[in-house]
Amino acid sequence: MKKLINDADAVVTDALLGIEYAHGDLQRVDHEHKVILRKDPKPAGKVGLISGGGSGHEPMHGGFVGLGMLDAACAGAVFTSPTPDQMEFATKAVDGGAGVLHIVKNYTGDVLNFEMAAELAAADGIEVASVIVDDDVAVQDSTWTAGRRGVGTTVLLEKIVGAAAEEGQDLAAVLELAKKINGQGRSMGMALTSCTVPAAGKPTFDLADDEMEVGIGIHGEPGRERKKIAPAKDVAAMLVEPILADLDFTGSPAIVMVNGMGGTPLIELYVVYREVAELLEKSGVKVARNLVGNYITSLEMAGSSVTVLKADDDILRLWDAPVVTPGLRWGA
Amino acid sequence: MKKLINDADAVVTDALLGIEYAHGDLQRVDHEHKVILRKDPKPAGKVGLISGGGSGHEPMHGGFVGLGMLDAACAGAVFTSPTPDQMEFATKAVDGGAGVLHIVKNYTGDVLNFEMAAELAAADGIEVASVIVDDDVAVQDSTWTAGRRGVGTTVLLEKIVGAAAEEGQDLAAVLELAKKINGQGRSMGMALTSCTVPAAGKPTFDLADDEMEVGIGIHGEPGRERKKIAPAKDVAAMLVEPILADLDFTGSPAIVMVNGMGGTPLIELYVVYREVAELLEKSGVKVARNLVGNYITSLEMAGSSVTVLKADDDILRLWDAPVVTPGLRWGA
Repeated sequence: MKKLINDADAVVTDALLGIEYAHGDLQRVDHEHKVILRKDPKPAGKVGLISGGGSGHEPMHGGFVGLGMLDAACAGAVFTSPTPDQMEFATKAVDGGAGVLHIVKNYTGDVLNFEMAAELAAADGIEVASVIVDDDVAVQDSTWTAGRRGVGTTVLLEKIVGAAAEEGQDLAAVLELAKKINGQGRSMGMALTSCTVPAAGKPTFDLADDEMEVGIGIHGEPGRERKKIAPAKDVAAMLVEPILADLDFTGSPAIVMVNGMGGTPLIELYVVYREVAELLEKSGVKVARNLVGNYITSLEMAGSSVTVLKADDDILRLWDAPVVTPGLRWGA
Repeated sequence: MKKLINDADAVVTDALLGIEYAHGDLQRVDHEHKVILRKDPKPAGKVGLISGGGSGHEPMHGGFVGLGMLDAACAGAVFTSPTPDQMEFATKAVDGGAGVLHIVKNYTGDVLNFEMAAELAAADGIEVASVIVDDDVAVQDSTWTAGRRGVGTTVLLEKIVGAAAEEGQDLAAVLELAKKINGQGRSMGMALTSCTVPAAGKPTFDLADDEMEVGIGIHGEPGRERKKIAPAKDVAAMLVEPILADLDFTGSPAIVMVNGMGGTPLIELYVVYREVAELLEKSGVKVARNLVGNYITSLEMAGSSVTVLKADDDILRLWDAPVVTPGLRWGA
């Protein structure tokens, strides 16, 4: 296992120290609870937004804590849900009386733990709402999930809902928007290589030199099919076509993300984006905004995922609102 | 060779199309000359800043074209210098009568071609100045270079000098600042894995499963030594100590970059940054600003480099000035 780490058991602890050193102007880290928080107190009356999940997907979620996006993120062990304790701590830390939204990716452990945390917080008198993100069209159920997995739409949702909370929308409105974004976002990913969880010390799965996995999850869960490697144009079609088959994206502006899984260089992501953009154009989907880069990763896995979100003028306005986080930043 | 590309010979062409689709709000691409330009005309009287080099180092340089940074970047074939024709085209395109600065990384091909381009532009009546970046402390000469190689300081230089040009400093002042930044920046990198140039189809060099290359260049040029893999703390020391031995960074604020080579996930870069920050603190170097992420890469190479720049109040002011590019963005 070749990794720039000190010890397999210390990866998250060490990374959180690095994040604190690097982003101390924007964030603070509670090392006891492994929670990343906005440095400056959020405005009075603002709905609190928290998310979290297993580590190994950076910059998600900790990199999205800051003005206009999340108020806190809980870091689990690599590819392992954070605990209810972490989530309860984060919920209390960000509540200012207007309630807290939990943004939960649909994995069994995350869903159960966030449910328990919501109950604990409710017992403390905090109003908690939850949205479960389940945007991955690749598989209906998986080894990690009942129902669809939560993947790239999470990034777009945290940005858009973050802007809504920042402008003072109340918990009911923020929850409704979050559900709408999840309902209008679809994703699909693929991998050229596996990844190695530090504590496991060996690749999560094996792929031959001429094979790729299409429909992969963000933890190396099996996808739809294992295929021979193919040109970027064909790979893009394998990702875009199931997305377009699942929802009608015509007639609305779309926000599109071509995401790297962690080990794929940016030059290749631009090659993929070119193909994705042309496929969408041919299909009558109008791309209004885009992201190309590493936003929701799987350690050093090589590969890419595509997310398409059906937007509208209000969603685009919230997308364009200022965001100041380590992972996304514009307008301020 | 597992890559998300269509054809080894079309990688740069395809990526430039992707960049145009993705960043059409900020940039335009001249596909004939393979030059990325600021979309909006630069302010009248502003010194033009251009750079360029082989592709495969994204986001550098094309990702740094925009307000507060470069006016244009020339994209060579992968790991191959752009031609003098490309550079001449870019120089003419960005000249507005105040002259043009060429930012050149110290590789033999780049230096020769930029020299020729400067002569061609001078013959057309354009005032051209050049700065050669040679900040890599790893080796004195290399297979690609007479003298030190130009690496991470290039990113910081393009940001800081870009801000100076944006605020209207003249060519002489911009050149002086660029030379100062180069003189005060030092870098060193390492690789856990090789990378594969698409046209070559096989790894540039071989590394055993338990080996790393310390002092690597950004094209897989040999480094100082091949060693057994080591914990991040030791790797950080191998990069930081030669930098501190080469220049006294105490007594001034420093700008520090922990850069990923393309295939290393962000969680590992934060582990490295933690070690680098603590080493610098122990050495009496005060880190005032930092970057952690993929800024100057070597395709899918796994590894990291460290850059330390000795700054001052004026340099920090220019660092903090607004920048709006695909690769760096803040303050606007």
